[in-house]
Amino acid sequence: MPKGTPPPALQEILRAPNLAVIATVRPDGELHTAATWYAWPGDGTVLVNMDGSRRRLAHMRADARVALTVFDGDRSWRHVSLDGRVREIRRDADLADIDAIAQHYTGAPFGDRSRDSWTAVIAVRRWHAWDGLGPMATGVSERGKT
Amino acid sequence: MPKGTPPPALQEILRAPNLAVIATVRPDGELHTAATWYAWPGDGTVLVNMDGSRRRLAHMRADARVALTVFDGDRSWRHVSLDGRVREIRRDADLADIDAIAQHYTGAPFGDRSRDSWTAVIAVRRWHAWDGLGPMATGVSERGKT
Repeated sequence: MPKGTPPPALQEILRAPNLAVIATVRPDGELHTAATWYAWPGDGTVLVNMDGSRRRLAHMRADARVALTVFDGDRSWRHVSLDGRVREIRRDADLADIDAIAQHYTGAPFGDRSRDSWTAVIAVRRWHAWDGLGPMATGVSERGKT
Repeated sequence: MPKGTPPPALQEILRAPNLAVIATVRPDGELHTAATWYAWPGDGTVLVNMDGSRRRLAHMRADARVALTVFDGDRSWRHVSLDGRVREIRRDADLADIDAIAQHYTGAPFGDRSRDSWTAVIAVRRWHAWDGLGPMATGVSERGKT
């Protein structure tokens, strides 16, 4: 695991199948947010998977800036936020990525086997977290410093 | 209510004290997201309230672009997203705004009576909503068209 990744308490939240919202930039420069599933492989990246028709996929192809807020289960007053850049967008032709994410969230593979499935790999640059009373942690990854 | 505001089913979600995430732009151009309470007065604006020390307040002062995703209570597969521009940032000197929002979310006035309280009024430009199977609605307000 690279230096500068979030501390264990935050990674525990990020590893769980939690509610999340992702922000991207629209072609006209306005912001766009949407709820999303995600995966936290633990290597300083976040994976999100989308159907090819999703607007945020087009947004990420045109502008790599992304931010994500993740809620800590039912403890909605605790949340972790990340920002970073899309490093890679890859075809998930065999649905391996979306199946792994669906398994994580629902306990079953993804339902729609005809999905035009795409995975974005986001390199995390910074994070901040809040526990209802105040900041839990704030940090910058090694990538964010470069 | 101005023409072009979201349909009643979406406004019902927006009126409830739901979990939300707000996106703003950092001074270096990167995106920032954070969980937030909000109020939906029903006039085509969203109100958010922050302590004066919150980064997103500084972000909104420098760049009016904002987006917000709101979850429909426990039905996390249903959510409404809005984007728009900060029209006004005003001092909430008597805590009237944060008390109204805290009352809405918690049933009680805001706990910290020494809060340096600020309210941002966001003029909604566009919205989209998702009900777990597909889009519920998409729209552009009269403001968004101009």
